[in-house]
Amino acid sequence: MSTTTLPRHVEIHEEGPREGFQIEPATYPQAERATLVEALAESGLPQIQVASFVSPKRVPQMADADRLFATIRKRPGTRYTALWLNEAGFERARAVPQVDLAGTLYFYASDAFSRQNNGRGAAAVMDEQRAWVQRYREAGLPVESAYVMTAFGCNLEGEIAEPRLAEVLRGVAALLRDAGLQLPKLYLADTVGWANPHAVRRRVDLVRTLLPGVRVGLHLHDTRGLGIANAFAALEMGVDLFDASVAGLGGCPFCGHAHGSAAGNVCTENLVFLCHELGIATGIDLEALLDAARLAERIIGRRLDGKLMHAGSLAAWRKP
Amino acid sequence: MSTTTLPRHVEIHEEGPREGFQIEPATYPQAERATLVEALAESGLPQIQVASFVSPKRVPQMADADRLFATIRKRPGTRYTALWLNEAGFERARAVPQVDLAGTLYFYASDAFSRQNNGRGAAAVMDEQRAWVQRYREAGLPVESAYVMTAFGCNLEGEIAEPRLAEVLRGVAALLRDAGLQLPKLYLADTVGWANPHAVRRRVDLVRTLLPGVRVGLHLHDTRGLGIANAFAALEMGVDLFDASVAGLGGCPFCGHAHGSAAGNVCTENLVFLCHELGIATGIDLEALLDAARLAERIIGRRLDGKLMHAGSLAAWRKP
Repeated sequence: MSTTTLPRHVEIHEEGPREGFQIEPATYPQAERATLVEALAESGLPQIQVASFVSPKRVPQMADADRLFATIRKRPGTRYTALWLNEAGFERARAVPQVDLAGTLYFYASDAFSRQNNGRGAAAVMDEQRAWVQRYREAGLPVESAYVMTAFGCNLEGEIAEPRLAEVLRGVAALLRDAGLQLPKLYLADTVGWANPHAVRRRVDLVRTLLPGVRVGLHLHDTRGLGIANAFAALEMGVDLFDASVAGLGGCPFCGHAHGSAAGNVCTENLVFLCHELGIATGIDLEALLDAARLAERIIGRRLDGKLMHAGSLAAWRKP
Repeated sequence: MSTTTLPRHVEIHEEGPREGFQIEPATYPQAERATLVEALAESGLPQIQVASFVSPKRVPQMADADRLFATIRKRPGTRYTALWLNEAGFERARAVPQVDLAGTLYFYASDAFSRQNNGRGAAAVMDEQRAWVQRYREAGLPVESAYVMTAFGCNLEGEIAEPRLAEVLRGVAALLRDAGLQLPKLYLADTVGWANPHAVRRRVDLVRTLLPGVRVGLHLHDTRGLGIANAFAALEMGVDLFDASVAGLGGCPFCGHAHGSAAGNVCTENLVFLCHELGIATGIDLEALLDAARLAERIIGRRLDGKLMHAGSLAAWRKP
């Protein structure tokens, strides 16, 4: 069933500063968050999502996104991106010259999850993406990626069957065709931890079949502990594009799931370590990344989920 | 490179009560440890390592191993095993009728690790195993498994090269031949987290080549966050025997590694979940196991590493 064509190089995008500080109940000092972003960039990560431009009432931790961007010393070669979910957020992000704008579309496989998060169903959100294509066009911003949220399942609707995912992907294909758009990247997002390694393989195959020529990425949450196994299964499919979260940031022991916790994205430094151990290049300095993970732990002020950051990599012990 | 022959049934042995309570600096009340063992057995785990019979001076947390065994209400169908490392420990274990004795041999791939842990090198320990074969024979106890410790690497010697592992496996084969012994199971132990999925596959292959007919098991520590990916790679090789640790017990934030922590075995309930999601039977009731994991967290009194125990399984949300 599996092909075992490892990519030679994998591109890993950092989501920790947004995912992590967004979900924490406290707001951490801006200077500390800026320092973390700078440390992450120093490790050679090609792209870092710094903050989101969302309602300051609903997410006060991100209210200072514009000032945060302005304070970061940027490293050449790193992109500093932001998340927005509506026009007002996009306009706020556009007004901050330090934001590296990336035209992104969002689709939902779970209708119920879309209703809970957007106040409207998956079909309505898909329609709105046509307006986003137009809006990005007017802004001179190329559409570079699309996310399919809850591409494996969610706690409201249960498992998303493959035919439903196929339906969403056909909808994306139709939208692209109508807009005369070539989409560079499509991410399958396992938003709440429903994926397993075989489901990852089948669904990556599905994207490649229905959207040939589009580069597949994965946004994997480690909610149920299978994140790194899911990433490994994808690597063996030749997937070379991942979101990840330093130190496993984004988990929250206070807010969330049935038993008191949700988990963040697959841990960046564990994923980089896996790639390097398999002989795959990432362009990332693992030791510098581990320093950034430990800095994140000091800032958050409690033990974080990342394993490698506590054990240390193998570099120090490996014989030359 | 990989075969993808998943086993239909996987046997998972629980190591948490020994690994977990042994590494904690505190000694937890005997009644609580007994209750945890009983809860684990209720989930259907076929084998639970309850305690070790080791020096009460060096490991005071295990000083009451005999009384702990005596207090557990045993469930039919579950084996309650113990660890010993020398003759005195074996004699103590034999004197406790509640211990399900299992004849186990230990080999070391890392000479330096063996010297640190045993006060003598790997070759000397291998020689001693001949005496253990004889001792078990005299006790009427079949030898049922052998462990190769540090089968992937260790922090003292670095990576264990495959030829060195092959040398150890040939030594095991010679010992078995000389003793006229058929070994049922051999475990590759990734004692301190040096394995990666491809190394797992190659080394499982090596055991099958050098010890044909021996069932291969894996004892994987999640020290560097790759435990579940390593287990997945092994499952796809048809490996159907794993040690694991409930809630990821065995990690210790106070004692250990370069940055203040070591991690336990791969988390039992995450592994059971992976198996079930892949359609592999374990004979274990996952919800009951999750209850046991949460009990372990209450006993230890701090947040444990297991992810699934905090998020909950998919059973509640999955549509019939």
